[in-house]
Amino acid sequence: MSLQPTPALAQFVLQSLPEQMSEKLAHEAKRAILNWVGCAVGASQHATVQHAITALSPFFGQSQASVLGRRERPDILHAALLNGITSHTFDFDDTHLKTVIHPAGPVASALIALAEHHPISGREFLHAFALGVEVECRIGNAVYPSHYDVGWHITGTAGVFGAAAAAGKVLKLSQQQLVWALGIAATQACGLREMFGSMCKPLHPGLAAKNGLYAALLAQQDFTSSEQGIEGKRGFANVLASERDFGRITEGLGETWELLENTYKPFACGIVIHPVIDGCIQLRSEHALQAAEIVAIHLRVHPLVLELTGKTAPRVGLEGKFSVYHSAAAAIIDGAAGEAQYSDEKVMDPEWIALRNKVQAVADATLKEDAAHIAITCSDGKVLNKHIAHTIGSLARPMSDRDLEEKFSRLCAPHLPKERSDALISAIWALDSRGDAGQLAQMTVPDA
Amino acid sequence: MSLQPTPALAQFVLQSLPEQMSEKLAHEAKRAILNWVGCAVGASQHATVQHAITALSPFFGQSQASVLGRRERPDILHAALLNGITSHTFDFDDTHLKTVIHPAGPVASALIALAEHHPISGREFLHAFALGVEVECRIGNAVYPSHYDVGWHITGTAGVFGAAAAAGKVLKLSQQQLVWALGIAATQACGLREMFGSMCKPLHPGLAAKNGLYAALLAQQDFTSSEQGIEGKRGFANVLASERDFGRITEGLGETWELLENTYKPFACGIVIHPVIDGCIQLRSEHALQAAEIVAIHLRVHPLVLELTGKTAPRVGLEGKFSVYHSAAAAIIDGAAGEAQYSDEKVMDPEWIALRNKVQAVADATLKEDAAHIAITCSDGKVLNKHIAHTIGSLARPMSDRDLEEKFSRLCAPHLPKERSDALISAIWALDSRGDAGQLAQMTVPDA
Repeated sequence: MSLQPTPALAQFVLQSLPEQMSEKLAHEAKRAILNWVGCAVGASQHATVQHAITALSPFFGQSQASVLGRRERPDILHAALLNGITSHTFDFDDTHLKTVIHPAGPVASALIALAEHHPISGREFLHAFALGVEVECRIGNAVYPSHYDVGWHITGTAGVFGAAAAAGKVLKLSQQQLVWALGIAATQACGLREMFGSMCKPLHPGLAAKNGLYAALLAQQDFTSSEQGIEGKRGFANVLASERDFGRITEGLGETWELLENTYKPFACGIVIHPVIDGCIQLRSEHALQAAEIVAIHLRVHPLVLELTGKTAPRVGLEGKFSVYHSAAAAIIDGAAGEAQYSDEKVMDPEWIALRNKVQAVADATLKEDAAHIAITCSDGKVLNKHIAHTIGSLARPMSDRDLEEKFSRLCAPHLPKERSDALISAIWALDSRGDAGQLAQMTVPDA
Repeated sequence: MSLQPTPALAQFVLQSLPEQMSEKLAHEAKRAILNWVGCAVGASQHATVQHAITALSPFFGQSQASVLGRRERPDILHAALLNGITSHTFDFDDTHLKTVIHPAGPVASALIALAEHHPISGREFLHAFALGVEVECRIGNAVYPSHYDVGWHITGTAGVFGAAAAAGKVLKLSQQQLVWALGIAATQACGLREMFGSMCKPLHPGLAAKNGLYAALLAQQDFTSSEQGIEGKRGFANVLASERDFGRITEGLGETWELLENTYKPFACGIVIHPVIDGCIQLRSEHALQAAEIVAIHLRVHPLVLELTGKTAPRVGLEGKFSVYHSAAAAIIDGAAGEAQYSDEKVMDPEWIALRNKVQAVADATLKEDAAHIAITCSDGKVLNKHIAHTIGSLARPMSDRDLEEKFSRLCAPHLPKERSDALISAIWALDSRGDAGQLAQMTVPDA
């Protein structure tokens, strides 16, 4: 491949055809969309999006697109922003493990809003989605880990390229225009890890979706940018990362698909805590374990667990998602770590606080990210051990289609009647034979 | 000052009162606004903003605010974006020399849009403007030069804080809310120097204005962020700069004013080329110099001149603004470097190309940024020398109020009748006694 990364990605996106998409890739796209719609509908009434809508609705444009799970109908730019927010609010969305990008939020949020304004078939939708994920994850691969380590929320910074690429495909941009769109995306890349634990974390995929859509729309009207937004001397990769490997962008383009490395979370929190939760739930179940009999919980975990989820005293539910201590307590007390276990009430419950204070965690750099050791000391002196080699939800132990359907139904249950939720599941599995992809968004809107 | 930078800036902005603003500060705010309105009206019909409006007008919200010099009337977020674009399109706006921030664009573009929606007096407007400039320039001071050197367009990245602070002042946010607004601004900071010479450069202050306004509006509805968006471990200063000095943010807050160090450009291009243009115009005038008699032009310049404006073969007018070679040719041939000298036609004119090809420039790190040496060799063997110690438009040789009025009139002439342009000048000088600042924007709108 002799082209530089930016024109190479543009050429790849424009030359790829929906007819060429393999069944395997199309099916994984549907799994990602199912998971993403569930997360968005599930969080559709959360204070995070409620505050955003109160703030921004005075500036909404014409009614053009749905906010998943809600009855407001803003312009497509605001719809992209709001769907990006809701789909990441529970931190329950998909994960590209190599980069910790949550791929669906930025890409699908831009795409579904655009699909209501600029109709496309279900297959075109799935194909543009796969392309957007490919672009964002390859750019992520090129700059991970130095880009993430310094403090960038890579879902936001890489996501904006994915949204721009997917929207650019739908808008049938020229090669020149798509190069510009990727440049306009590059110069809007943003999102700091400092924001983790606040409403700004889910804002980031929302911004990526909105800003990526902006990029494609501007480029469509010949709004120019650098032609090397990714690889230029003062471009994205050189400015936002101390190390980079452009070969990760261009090698095997069109032959391998990053979407096939996507994973889905069984638990509503940072993915790095999943092995601990999995192990604690297994110990609870195997030994009918009660919180009252526990003296201490010793965890050995990958170093990122403490860096990302080391909050020992979370004060609100959102912070609980960044506390391995609270999460272990949830797994023991409730045998679960769904959205209900990350409420403000649970985080401040004295019984839960007592148990989380018994948790000690140490970093072990020899462990893989999907592994953990748990040792629980009981009041009778017994020590229960569990080694998780690969957590549920990892690439080695993925959630099944049925698991994803159950997760979807649980997320939608507070907001949509069961018939509607079931119909959505069917519609998503049948998406590649659907004439108008945008109708999917409208199916999530509750009746008046 | 014991507070950290983020809460310290929030407290400063909220405690400062319009009544306390000195006459000197108010007058400098008016000079900056006069210069900014002129630049925005002057570029109001440029292809850059035309393309942006064609792309985005299908998504405009309710008619809330003016686009300076145009008849469209979008929602305030789009108005902020578009005014930020037009005011920087000619690269003719103001400059805070210590940081090369163009301070007015991000702050005034957010503020004037908000003022049409949320009426404030002229004095409140000038005061909020001074506060916004203070916040953006102090943050710039803290991270310059490492932040700029790595490739960030500091007008975009620091500007978003200024827009958020000014809008937060007008919206009367609480201390907690303004801290959040600065955090939401931090996580949207963006803009790469890679884009210089393309339409994305003026996009950056537009994005800063729009995103800063977003930040204040979201925070007003208690949308949370980190409480240390600027100084946190993964916050703005640590992630976007390799060196930083937080004392530059907090020391002397409320006692010194960065706006008093603002400068205004006599020439429509990167400020680093100004000493060269000034010197060439002086030599032309002193020696009645003709292009035909010139054999060679030797320049000794500050190293940034070659780094920022080293384009030897610009192809379009926008690129000409980043070419010290084209600019020197303009100064010799036309005795001027206004917008007319940076047209696509002039950049491709064979006579101009022939002269710019005779220009050689070498970097001299002992020179100040506002200085240059020019040596012109003529066909008769004569060598004409000029040393510029401080260029016109520098802090040492500022443009007078009258100079600024003339610049304003020249910029407005193609778009507004002279009576209207004169009325705008009077209105801006009288801004502190005006009841409704937003009317100023409406005065720039051409009649149907």
